[in-house]
Amino acid sequence: MSADAEVLTALHTIFDADTGIYRERGFQRRVGYGTRPALVHIDLANAWTRPDHAFSCDGMDTIIPAVQALNAAGRAKGIPIVYTTTAYDDVEGPNSDMGLWVHKIPVELLKVGTEAVQIDSRIAPHPGEMVIVKKRASGFHGTRLSSYLNAHGVDTVIITGVTMAGCVRHTTEDAIAEGFRPIVVREAVGDRVPGVVEWNLFDIDAKFGDVEPLKQVLGYLAGIEPFESRVRAEVAAPG
Amino acid sequence: MSADAEVLTALHTIFDADTGIYRERGFQRRVGYGTRPALVHIDLANAWTRPDHAFSCDGMDTIIPAVQALNAAGRAKGIPIVYTTTAYDDVEGPNSDMGLWVHKIPVELLKVGTEAVQIDSRIAPHPGEMVIVKKRASGFHGTRLSSYLNAHGVDTVIITGVTMAGCVRHTTEDAIAEGFRPIVVREAVGDRVPGVVEWNLFDIDAKFGDVEPLKQVLGYLAGIEPFESRVRAEVAAPG
Amino acid sequence: MSADAEVLTALHTIFDADTGIYRERGFQRRVGYGTRPALVHIDLANAWTRPDHAFSCDGMDTIIPAVQALNAAGRAKGIPIVYTTTAYDDVEGPNSDMGLWVHKIPVELLKVGTEAVQIDSRIAPHPGEMVIVKKRASGFHGTRLSSYLNAHGVDTVIITGVTMAGCVRHTTEDAIAEGFRPIVVREAVGDRVPGVVEWNLFDIDAKFGDVEPLKQVLGYLAGIEPFESRVRAEVAAPG
Amino acid sequence: MSADAEVLTALHTIFDADTGIYRERGFQRRVGYGTRPALVHIDLANAWTRPDHAFSCDGMDTIIPAVQALNAAGRAKGIPIVYTTTAYDDVEGPNSDMGLWVHKIPVELLKVGTEAVQIDSRIAPHPGEMVIVKKRASGFHGTRLSSYLNAHGVDTVIITGVTMAGCVRHTTEDAIAEGFRPIVVREAVGDRVPGVVEWNLFDIDAKFGDVEPLKQVLGYLAGIEPFESRVRAEVAAPG
Repeated sequence: MSADAEVLTALHTIFDADTGIYRERGFQRRVGYGTRPALVHIDLANAWTRPDHAFSCDGMDTIIPAVQALNAAGRAKGIPIVYTTTAYDDVEGPNSDMGLWVHKIPVELLKVGTEAVQIDSRIAPHPGEMVIVKKRASGFHGTRLSSYLNAHGVDTVIITGVTMAGCVRHTTEDAIAEGFRPIVVREAVGDRVPGVVEWNLFDIDAKFGDVEPLKQVLGYLAGIEPFESRVRAEVAAPG
Repeated sequence: MSADAEVLTALHTIFDADTGIYRERGFQRRVGYGTRPALVHIDLANAWTRPDHAFSCDGMDTIIPAVQALNAAGRAKGIPIVYTTTAYDDVEGPNSDMGLWVHKIPVELLKVGTEAVQIDSRIAPHPGEMVIVKKRASGFHGTRLSSYLNAHGVDTVIITGVTMAGCVRHTTEDAIAEGFRPIVVREAVGDRVPGVVEWNLFDIDAKFGDVEPLKQVLGYLAGIEPFESRVRAEVAAPG
Repeated sequence: MSADAEVLTALHTIFDADTGIYRERGFQRRVGYGTRPALVHIDLANAWTRPDHAFSCDGMDTIIPAVQALNAAGRAKGIPIVYTTTAYDDVEGPNSDMGLWVHKIPVELLKVGTEAVQIDSRIAPHPGEMVIVKKRASGFHGTRLSSYLNAHGVDTVIITGVTMAGCVRHTTEDAIAEGFRPIVVREAVGDRVPGVVEWNLFDIDAKFGDVEPLKQVLGYLAGIEPFESRVRAEVAAPG
Repeated sequence: MSADAEVLTALHTIFDADTGIYRERGFQRRVGYGTRPALVHIDLANAWTRPDHAFSCDGMDTIIPAVQALNAAGRAKGIPIVYTTTAYDDVEGPNSDMGLWVHKIPVELLKVGTEAVQIDSRIAPHPGEMVIVKKRASGFHGTRLSSYLNAHGVDTVIITGVTMAGCVRHTTEDAIAEGFRPIVVREAVGDRVPGVVEWNLFDIDAKFGDVEPLKQVLGYLAGIEPFESRVRAEVAAPG
């Protein structure tokens, strides 16, 4: 559900005022695209993409096709494609891996091995594409994502998925912190309550990454060189 | 500057609608307080707390006294107190430690050793309190903060400072991810553009930490046991 | 295979000389035991514990019973028990998650889902015990281990497994760095080539953690209080 | 002080036997050099490089000139150069940032701001070269090192310094874990007790990075392209 017209108008009034201040002070710059991108799809598993789950999100009619288009463009160039899901090995025991997050949100519903936490079959990973089972909001926190991207010489992270107010935002913040250029695809992110997509995209574009339209990102992917594996590349030392 | 009355009304209309959905679905739970807290003050250095800087924030008339009160209460119990600032060793060279962030916000203005990045003298650290010079938004990213708190057996992180849409939010997200209970003090956080304090506190309280009034936090600190150093404590193994 | 008698004699001659210097300079101190331990078993999966694999290690006649005894003692107190294995989703493709490590050691033999990377059935995890599939040497690197232990208020990490010159050593170094007291159980660690167990235990005991005999560790576990879950514990804030 | 002849002979007997096993099993591969290296000098501060300190190391007659030669070669190509030192803000108080390490080694002697923890003047950093004040053994742990290198597109880390059994080893392990190719320069690393340089270089070369002679590394640096800043480089998205 997107914020209704009245609310959106009110939000854009704030955004306009804020933008004036940000621009005057030198914020809202462009991080831009590098030459070695990866796609990172956040939590596009059934619990988020299908109806009737506590985690269900809106906007899948737009998000799923956008992700399909990005995957097609990315696969054509052989770039790394990563999916995350959030799931726990133990949602009941005294030493559960949910940590403290269960005190804020219903992560006890996300059990490893259940259909709910499987990536949506409409965007099923191909062989050689990574699925990372994370425990926290950020795709980077407590996962191999950063070292995986780094080992492959990735410099740009194209981010999609849900939720905007949670996992997508935290992942984007971590991406630029780690040294990757974050590109958040406007049509490919969503959430489950009104307003939060808008204000989180506003904050991100001001400070953490570039919010870009799908068409622009597809154009970028069409224009890059095929992705050569860095893991194997090396320079022979001189004898 | 807080959002003016009309805008606040519009925001609260959204928050109310969102809260209905969140509650129905089991979000907006309470993480609560542990027994071994630390205070973490984010970027309360002159560039943020004093006027006429690109990073200057509003609300210091409220924030500074709130931090002073928290420090007095925390020092009375001997809890760890940490301040962060954001500053760079090299803001000009080709291999600058600003990383990519300079492409979004004017971090080139934050030079190590300048008055701008010193902690505000009104809340000057006492001996034995830590000042962490971070390079990214989160106080945890690329710093010793997590291992410092962990070595001291801290279980709760009481967070103040600026900005709400940037460093405070990212720090809070990381705090719960690392396994600390985040408590964000309502009167002790701020920003420089309207609206962002409100919507970021809303997102945090729904998903990442508890937003609590100063009075409540001071009451909590008054009630805890004095903080005993964990670094030195150990149990002798049986002979 | 342990180093033969002559080699061990030579090594101990070095260790004695080194110990003289270390003691004189204030190294080789004791980190000691805390009150909330966890067991961390490194890479005790079939590829390491059974014969005829490139990763096969020696000493399982001693290591497996030691781990069984530690698990029994730990389960009696309800402490967190964690197993790691090293395995990769993709060992062939251009964007493999092996990263650079395949350029040093034959990690291409460690495929997710194969019997080789399953925990040895003689020490099979019980429900509620964690199995972490890591990609690097350290159990902490790119995994949820640190935040898992931290969320549960663990202060001491009792380490077993293989290999001493690789994953056990790196895990121990990271454990103290993260703020946990590392206890390495002498009889419960091993490797596949002579000498490396001895010199790595020597380095660790001098600088990173306490190398302790099994009997001592079992005595410690027998003496601690039952482990209460920290994830659930909280203090009510005063009204 | 290096191990005396008899001990070295004994060690090399072990190394030869171990090498036989490692080669047969596919270990001791070469990670090789990438195209964008950085120099990382570990703890070459006065407490380690000058006599009469608890941390003093041997071999500076060889190490210092080797580092000078590497710096000259690296500066000619404009590559990032990073120095670490280990120092603490508070070595006395109950909430010291020494964490648990003081229970193993005398880090209470390493106070921020003292001459002991300054980089040795013979290899003083030039403007734009980074000095990272770390708290733990690894140059990566709790520091900005990884994100700094990543933001600059570094793929290879050339490592020097002390001590081999402590900070150099842990840094090397972390380097490959993070996705950088570690090259440890044989003549540019040292320690303070006999034997440990030899066995740690042996373990590293078998599993974590390539131990290379200075001449080889200088030849490599002479042959690479000048280092272009990645922080500034970007690709314009198609209109």
